[in-house]
Amino acid sequence: MSTRSKIIYTFTDEAPALATYSLLPIVEAFAASAGIAVETRDISLAGRILASFADQLDADKQTEDDLAKLADLATTPDANIIKLPNISASVPQLKGAIAELQAQGYNVPDFPEDPQSDAEKEARARYAKVLGSAVNPVLREGNSDRRAPAAVKAYARKHPHSMGKWSMASQSHADYMRGGDFFSSEQSITMPQAGEVRIEFVGKDGQVEVKKQLALQEGEVFDSMYMSCRKLRDFFEKTLQDCKETGVMWSLHVKATMMKVSHPIVFGHAVSVYYKDVFDKYGELFKELGVNPNNGISSVYDKIKALPASQQEEILQDIHACYSGRPEMAMVDSVKGITNLHIPSDVIVDASMPAMIRSSGQMWGKDGKLKDAKAVMPESTYARIYQEMINFCKTNGAFDPTTMGSVPNVGLMAQKAEEYGSHDKTFEMTADGTMRVVLADGTVLMQHQVEAGDIWRACQTKDAPIRDWVKLAVTRARQSNTPAIFWLDPERAHDRELQKKVETYLQEHDLSGLDIRMMGYNEAIRVSMERLIRGQDTISVTGNVLRDYLTDLFPIMELGTSAKMLSIVPLMAGGGMYETGAGGSAPKHVQQLIEENHLRWDSLGEFLALAVSLEETGIKTDNPKAKLLGKTLDAATGKLLDNDKSPSRKTGELDNRGSHFYLALYWAQELAAQNEDAELQAQFAPLAKTLADNEESIVAELAAVQGQPVDIGGYYRSNPQLTSQVMRPSPTFNGAIAALTA
Amino acid sequence: MSTRSKIIYTFTDEAPALATYSLLPIVEAFAASAGIAVETRDISLAGRILASFADQLDADKQTEDDLAKLADLATTPDANIIKLPNISASVPQLKGAIAELQAQGYNVPDFPEDPQSDAEKEARARYAKVLGSAVNPVLREGNSDRRAPAAVKAYARKHPHSMGKWSMASQSHADYMRGGDFFSSEQSITMPQAGEVRIEFVGKDGQVEVKKQLALQEGEVFDSMYMSCRKLRDFFEKTLQDCKETGVMWSLHVKATMMKVSHPIVFGHAVSVYYKDVFDKYGELFKELGVNPNNGISSVYDKIKALPASQQEEILQDIHACYSGRPEMAMVDSVKGITNLHIPSDVIVDASMPAMIRSSGQMWGKDGKLKDAKAVMPESTYARIYQEMINFCKTNGAFDPTTMGSVPNVGLMAQKAEEYGSHDKTFEMTADGTMRVVLADGTVLMQHQVEAGDIWRACQTKDAPIRDWVKLAVTRARQSNTPAIFWLDPERAHDRELQKKVETYLQEHDLSGLDIRMMGYNEAIRVSMERLIRGQDTISVTGNVLRDYLTDLFPIMELGTSAKMLSIVPLMAGGGMYETGAGGSAPKHVQQLIEENHLRWDSLGEFLALAVSLEETGIKTDNPKAKLLGKTLDAATGKLLDNDKSPSRKTGELDNRGSHFYLALYWAQELAAQNEDAELQAQFAPLAKTLADNEESIVAELAAVQGQPVDIGGYYRSNPQLTSQVMRPSPTFNGAIAALTA
Repeated sequence: MSTRSKIIYTFTDEAPALATYSLLPIVEAFAASAGIAVETRDISLAGRILASFADQLDADKQTEDDLAKLADLATTPDANIIKLPNISASVPQLKGAIAELQAQGYNVPDFPEDPQSDAEKEARARYAKVLGSAVNPVLREGNSDRRAPAAVKAYARKHPHSMGKWSMASQSHADYMRGGDFFSSEQSITMPQAGEVRIEFVGKDGQVEVKKQLALQEGEVFDSMYMSCRKLRDFFEKTLQDCKETGVMWSLHVKATMMKVSHPIVFGHAVSVYYKDVFDKYGELFKELGVNPNNGISSVYDKIKALPASQQEEILQDIHACYSGRPEMAMVDSVKGITNLHIPSDVIVDASMPAMIRSSGQMWGKDGKLKDAKAVMPESTYARIYQEMINFCKTNGAFDPTTMGSVPNVGLMAQKAEEYGSHDKTFEMTADGTMRVVLADGTVLMQHQVEAGDIWRACQTKDAPIRDWVKLAVTRARQSNTPAIFWLDPERAHDRELQKKVETYLQEHDLSGLDIRMMGYNEAIRVSMERLIRGQDTISVTGNVLRDYLTDLFPIMELGTSAKMLSIVPLMAGGGMYETGAGGSAPKHVQQLIEENHLRWDSLGEFLALAVSLEETGIKTDNPKAKLLGKTLDAATGKLLDNDKSPSRKTGELDNRGSHFYLALYWAQELAAQNEDAELQAQFAPLAKTLADNEESIVAELAAVQGQPVDIGGYYRSNPQLTSQVMRPSPTFNGAIAALTA
Repeated sequence: MSTRSKIIYTFTDEAPALATYSLLPIVEAFAASAGIAVETRDISLAGRILASFADQLDADKQTEDDLAKLADLATTPDANIIKLPNISASVPQLKGAIAELQAQGYNVPDFPEDPQSDAEKEARARYAKVLGSAVNPVLREGNSDRRAPAAVKAYARKHPHSMGKWSMASQSHADYMRGGDFFSSEQSITMPQAGEVRIEFVGKDGQVEVKKQLALQEGEVFDSMYMSCRKLRDFFEKTLQDCKETGVMWSLHVKATMMKVSHPIVFGHAVSVYYKDVFDKYGELFKELGVNPNNGISSVYDKIKALPASQQEEILQDIHACYSGRPEMAMVDSVKGITNLHIPSDVIVDASMPAMIRSSGQMWGKDGKLKDAKAVMPESTYARIYQEMINFCKTNGAFDPTTMGSVPNVGLMAQKAEEYGSHDKTFEMTADGTMRVVLADGTVLMQHQVEAGDIWRACQTKDAPIRDWVKLAVTRARQSNTPAIFWLDPERAHDRELQKKVETYLQEHDLSGLDIRMMGYNEAIRVSMERLIRGQDTISVTGNVLRDYLTDLFPIMELGTSAKMLSIVPLMAGGGMYETGAGGSAPKHVQQLIEENHLRWDSLGEFLALAVSLEETGIKTDNPKAKLLGKTLDAATGKLLDNDKSPSRKTGELDNRGSHFYLALYWAQELAAQNEDAELQAQFAPLAKTLADNEESIVAELAAVQGQPVDIGGYYRSNPQLTSQVMRPSPTFNGAIAALTA
């Protein structure tokens, strides 16, 4: 079997990982009929922790570094990877996983908050690589092509999800810094030739400290920018005062998981400004205790447990007293009293803002009611698109899924492009001075005056990915026969550099009959929305951050979820990666499974990705059976949508496992009904019959287990055997699948 | 003296007319030095009423029809007209003027509400021509070129007017019909050759009623459209319900004066929907009494005076009861309890919306406080630009007069273009049926299904004005070296016809180096605003309604008033008309003069217009003295602004008369200081000296009279002798001016 006849199916975390226990045996059985092996690679948070410390574990507990192997594979033409959503871990999540692994007998070190010894520093460095969005950047050796498949779009038009009504009198809005943020200070250059650069800090005393050395490629775009700590804190205070005056709820929206260095700091300032009185009063004590506002107000709750009860109570009272001087805050969980500032990973801007816009521009208040809110998003670079959409909804009402068009995306993503690769070039200033980027010969390319506390960062965007991105945009515009807009803001230094390259690389393509334009973000989103409400499609061709934001924002309006998007990464080396379920790894789903044995995760994204992956395999290895498997899987998926066999949110109704059964049934039926391949026809006709004949008993077996708590032996690393038993509760169904490969 | 050495100064109404009593003697004296005669023409409301009924008046009270004479003049190359603002009379204003004239012994007939006899019908027809905006359409034989003069813009940057802060949480917005309005039903054709058309109504029974016959020119654009009465009333009800729910004030913004046939009907529906319970209960009685909601709720108050006291009281109680079920309404005068629905002429959209936007998007509530409001503007065609600006201010804050750019306007206005000439082609349907536009040969050009109560109208736009407008736009873009945007909405039938013509006529000009674009209204205003806040200018090239709206909207943001705009009408026949004070005729100013003998009217617009008029005269008649008068007047105006000698709003401080004194002083000083013309130098040096020497005593004489009520013998037609005495209270100043021509 050629290596190309292998599909790599990633094993990740939470709901997608649970669903994998049910779906993978089906996929393996079907794929085997075309001679295709389906192998898993463990890139879960727990798996990555274990791989990082393999050298320190007992021999029987050591694992290979699957992520590193996948990263290598991604740079070869053989790659054919189904990539499921995984946890982008915040510090609290990481700590949770560590604790769980230690309890399971894995001898991994604690997360060192304040590393002192060499061993602690080493552990901290290894954990840093596990934190945040640590998987996608290393796998994404290609740009991104995301769109709503026709069957999904048709389903949404026929069965529209709920959309909260918008009032023209809504007070909701997105507020952002007007100066002092990354946008205002951005500088950008394009390297005329390859070269070494140093990132240096020059102190007031003239001392030079080299922060980082980098080898840049010819044609690489290199940006630097900083956020003023003082202005950021002023901004937070101003937004709080404003909310206090207007009675609008205050809500913070950052991306502390992905922007794992800069945004936790931003988040921390929000926490220490909101609870300013407490942080002022207990500054010294909190320092001693190791309180870190970057981990949320929960860090205070955690750390003060070390104090005597009376002192704890005093601090809690002072925290409580803060609320009277501050505006109401949006709640993550109003029942449990968990706000937006509790931990940094609860509210992630690209998911939280579409949710707010879908809910009439409102968020949950502490009384469990939806209310207008000020969405606070310090970085004006991207916040403006949300304000634009909010204004649009105030004026035109909520989007109508039954009539609206679509905004697919072609995103610049390869090789850690832009801010999403900036983590190792992000620094929190410890003193006033100058940050500068210097060539080996001493030429200063860029510099900023900074103050202690400011966040300075540099971003890289390599030339080859840009060129590939332009090609992908033109290809997509041609294949979809749809206008495409490059979102490039003429007021951004970085975008002006990109614009020159886009203009150059567009000349490499036949643009006849295509409608390809460049616009600033506000104009681009506005034009796209005006077209959207008129039922017209517009491809957004964007940088890496907007790719991430927009492929949640528009799908959530159009489809109710971003998990139903077809998300293809044509790898630059020739392989393919097929990402599924952009909606995240869904901790709430796991909770429901454990408490009620119902998994509402929708594997639609996996179905869609598998179909494309099978088709690609078929084309690349000249395997007609593989192509047919892909084609029939797509048809089965369409039928599943039409027959409304997607998982229900309600315990007792059809769940993830049930929808896998229907997928298998419809897929087998499609294969049995086709005439292109007699072998496959013969092989799947019996399965189709068995499944159809036993539909009632299988569905009953799947339903019977629901309603009771289950034990899967772990959250971050559940027990495989227990989980498999929970996720495959129908002996009839399991038997039918087993019979296929028997 | 050539006829070209004559400037026609219009005599109008209210504050501008009062100011004329003070300013004109100065102007006459200065102009005489260049051999230029300044003649007045009475186009006041009172003057037009008297002219309309000259044949019915006593011989000694007959006047000539100055407006008709001016209209003739405007079509000749000799025209040089200074046009001051005049009353666009609503029915209540017209009645007020009639009553005053009758009291002054003029035997003009009453305004027949419901004309029966032939005489009444004849009177009604004559009054119809006096109503509303009856002056501008007949004089405007050219397109419009309006901009902020450099001195005025510089002054505003240095001495910014107050701008209310905007909150991002503001609930204010502009609401408009989403279907059923003129926009949605508009049809438009361009006449391939000259031809007669009939506007006909075809009843359900097939009966054809010819409403109007028209001779259209070759290339003329002809539109037809209607507003659904049912949908309009539903819309009003919906907006009222919405305000009741959200707690936002309700406020109606129409243009019942200019759109004198269609908008009073729209206004009337607002009244009868808001007070629905009352109009339902007393429908029959109100009919008998002659109550007309189109005249406002004041019509009820007026008409029920004929009833017994007890019945009056019952009705008043029922009116009062309406308020409890309705949202709070924006007040015109909260002290007197006068709302937006009192009379149709109080709230005029193009003035009221900029005022609201300048005041933080708020209007006055019944408690005398500023509050957020829903600005209800049924016609979506133009309402959208206000919503766009409101969203923009919510997002970017109030405009900053010290840094903002400018939006001059080139407006299509000549020969009653577009809606502003539609009054004689506007019909309120009395039955269901079809309205259609038919060629002489029976070809149906356009048609609409209509219902009783619907408002149908047709608009004309002649080809020559469009061609001239394109030329004026290119000329202005070239002379100002400023980008120009044609505001043409691709979704409007009329604008699509215009767009074709613009494309054709642009080819007649050298466009090299010019930035001329076409955009829909939303995009055009958004781009203009984005440029504005970056200090950049953008010429708006618009149709007639937008011309009117934008030349209030932007100047009020930029300069605090539209009265300071330079407003030139290059007449198509070669003459020139110079309009002043687009801000209206200011009834409140008159009130202050009568009660406190202080006139706060700012004649700046007259100064600016006169300077251009004198310069044009100089060029056309090769009169260097005239040119010099113009140049020095401009310099004097700049000095007046610099020295802050504009009228104060506060009684006791420098008023209109005082600023005229300073203008005369500076103008004389400029003429005395120049070396181009020795004769003028010699003539004005003594005046400059006299005025400078007597500055203190003249200002004291002007101040001394303030603070007491005065009698000018009338409002619509004041007594000339009394008024002149009031407006020229300084013997020292009067003597100095008299000496000039002695």
